[in-house]
Amino acid sequence: MSHKIELTVSGRLRKSPYYNSTLRYGASSFTVYNHMLMPTAYDSPEVDYWNLVNNVTLWDVGAERQVEISGNDAYKFVEYITCRDLSSIQIGQGKYALISDENGSIVNDPIILRLEEQRFWLSIADSDVLLWTRGLASGLGWDVKIHEPDASPLAIQGPNNLPLMNDLFGDWVSDLKYFFFRQTELNGIPLIVQRSGWSKQGGFELYLLDRTRGDDLWDMVMGAGKKYDIKPATPNNIERIESGLFSWGNDMDLTNNPLELPLTKFCNIDKSADYLSRKALKRIESSGIKNKVVGLIIDGKPFSGGCESTWNAFTDDTLCGKVTSAAYSPRIKSNIAFATLKSSLGDLGTVIQVETPWGYRSATVTNIPFL
Amino acid sequence: MSHKIELTVSGRLRKSPYYNSTLRYGASSFTVYNHMLMPTAYDSPEVDYWNLVNNVTLWDVGAERQVEISGNDAYKFVEYITCRDLSSIQIGQGKYALISDENGSIVNDPIILRLEEQRFWLSIADSDVLLWTRGLASGLGWDVKIHEPDASPLAIQGPNNLPLMNDLFGDWVSDLKYFFFRQTELNGIPLIVQRSGWSKQGGFELYLLDRTRGDDLWDMVMGAGKKYDIKPATPNNIERIESGLFSWGNDMDLTNNPLELPLTKFCNIDKSADYLSRKALKRIESSGIKNKVVGLIIDGKPFSGGCESTWNAFTDDTLCGKVTSAAYSPRIKSNIAFATLKSSLGDLGTVIQVETPWGYRSATVTNIPFL
Repeated sequence: MSHKIELTVSGRLRKSPYYNSTLRYGASSFTVYNHMLMPTAYDSPEVDYWNLVNNVTLWDVGAERQVEISGNDAYKFVEYITCRDLSSIQIGQGKYALISDENGSIVNDPIILRLEEQRFWLSIADSDVLLWTRGLASGLGWDVKIHEPDASPLAIQGPNNLPLMNDLFGDWVSDLKYFFFRQTELNGIPLIVQRSGWSKQGGFELYLLDRTRGDDLWDMVMGAGKKYDIKPATPNNIERIESGLFSWGNDMDLTNNPLELPLTKFCNIDKSADYLSRKALKRIESSGIKNKVVGLIIDGKPFSGGCESTWNAFTDDTLCGKVTSAAYSPRIKSNIAFATLKSSLGDLGTVIQVETPWGYRSATVTNIPFL
Repeated sequence: MSHKIELTVSGRLRKSPYYNSTLRYGASSFTVYNHMLMPTAYDSPEVDYWNLVNNVTLWDVGAERQVEISGNDAYKFVEYITCRDLSSIQIGQGKYALISDENGSIVNDPIILRLEEQRFWLSIADSDVLLWTRGLASGLGWDVKIHEPDASPLAIQGPNNLPLMNDLFGDWVSDLKYFFFRQTELNGIPLIVQRSGWSKQGGFELYLLDRTRGDDLWDMVMGAGKKYDIKPATPNNIERIESGLFSWGNDMDLTNNPLELPLTKFCNIDKSADYLSRKALKRIESSGIKNKVVGLIIDGKPFSGGCESTWNAFTDDTLCGKVTSAAYSPRIKSNIAFATLKSSLGDLGTVIQVETPWGYRSATVTNIPFL
């Protein structure tokens, strides 16, 4: 159930620095993400999937915007907005974190990059974190400056990413640890290179620091990638579900809190730094979560698409939750999904019913990630 | 220059309660607005334009989301986020207001509705005001609750709106003054009816208060509208420029402040209530604005589309601003536009050059609205 509709291009929908390149390379469909056009397909989802899983691909993820936080209270502020303990984050390191408010509501799930002692970027999913952090900082009256810098990620993803990265940047990139980054340049184009990316196929993100050079950077990577048969691609719904990567706006939003997600290693709710969600999360921890985000294996024929909207989940004919993302996995050879269910149904092996666009199907709660 | 691309429908892009109805009635293109799909065209822009200007039309503007602010500090908070004096706003009244922060940056330009003494809605343009206001309230520690209610506007716009509205609701709607509203129901469907809408052709917005009833409401209005030859339509880029209606994200954003816009009647910068932008706006007032939002009449052949991105503006071969919205007006029989220019160029009659997709054109600063 994946129909496509026509999108009216207008000024309000911002263009990534790579937009013209993606059109030139045949991007066939787009989404809007952080008020910016982002390609979602070149060939079919399956062909794009195998290019990513088997080789190396180049993605325009310029819509993954950055929110820069600097000033004397920058570190204190960044600790304040997440339940993740950031006390050990080094300059040049990134960490995944859930950003949440005084109710425990999840505002976004960025990678937090520490650029200087008191300068951070939040590399965000699709909500206006810029506005939330500016509102919060204004109300608190803390000494922070918050703005959106000129930084537009381009992702190199896939198992053959490293030889290409070595050709482009040299051997040092092989030593970058996961989520670590370094500022550099490529033929005069200023960049931050980070080992990162929204897949588990390995790769890097190049944060372009001069938006006028998007096409130049794209062409340089494509040129160097020719000998590795690089293909243009996009964040891939099938692969990211297999890999257990959640999508804010799909699998979580303001109605969820961090304790509902299988991400406890990122939730240090007793951390020593002061943070906004502490009271709410302690209260939720002691009363118990009402809902739980789980993986599902769904029976029956392969799905021919994903969730255009959430699908209702039932137990004994009673609504018990919703499926938020789904795909047929060609490697697992099953339909896989993320769902938010009543927490009593969150145990491994629990069987529920899901109302899919292709009829009711049985589904079994399973571990995340699937692969 | 108005090309269309394909949009991938996914769960993250929310569906309006009228979404299925708009597809059924032949919506041919969409945009994403407040993370929600919103139709932008049925027939050609010109046909949609004449239906609006000559008769009566029905628009899915469910993407115009509401931010509800309630609690003991609700009135104080709403005064705090705008330079407009709201001291006279009555229960049942709406007012257009620019929301701005401690730098004077414009966060959004909603209609503010007063539902109760201490309960307000912000009927917003395309930015996450929910997040900004929640962040701000959290930092301030004020006694307000902020959430997005189940309220989805459907607009009836066009000169023949009133007979249709009388048929649907009775005579009392004729007495509603501009931006005033009343809660009511239509065959059991709970609604707020407001004299409002994003055109100057006259009309109402019906705020559906039960999102499961979208198709029912759509069909009721379409059924009653048959005798008036009602047509489905959308916010119309040509008409809204003619009428001087700005679009946040196009004609203004965080880089603008209220004093740059020709909206001084909505800027009471010396109002008695405390507000966040006061210091910044007083400073800007005394030092003088750097930029000014103006109307332009642009020479040459009729434009065949609007701005897909901003167009650069020049004086003496030097960049002096940008055109943010443009259209050919069939009634004025000229190309018309909004632009942000250096304030020294903002006087009526000033001539500049604009780099359009169809070449360089001369343009003359003029009054807003155009009609």
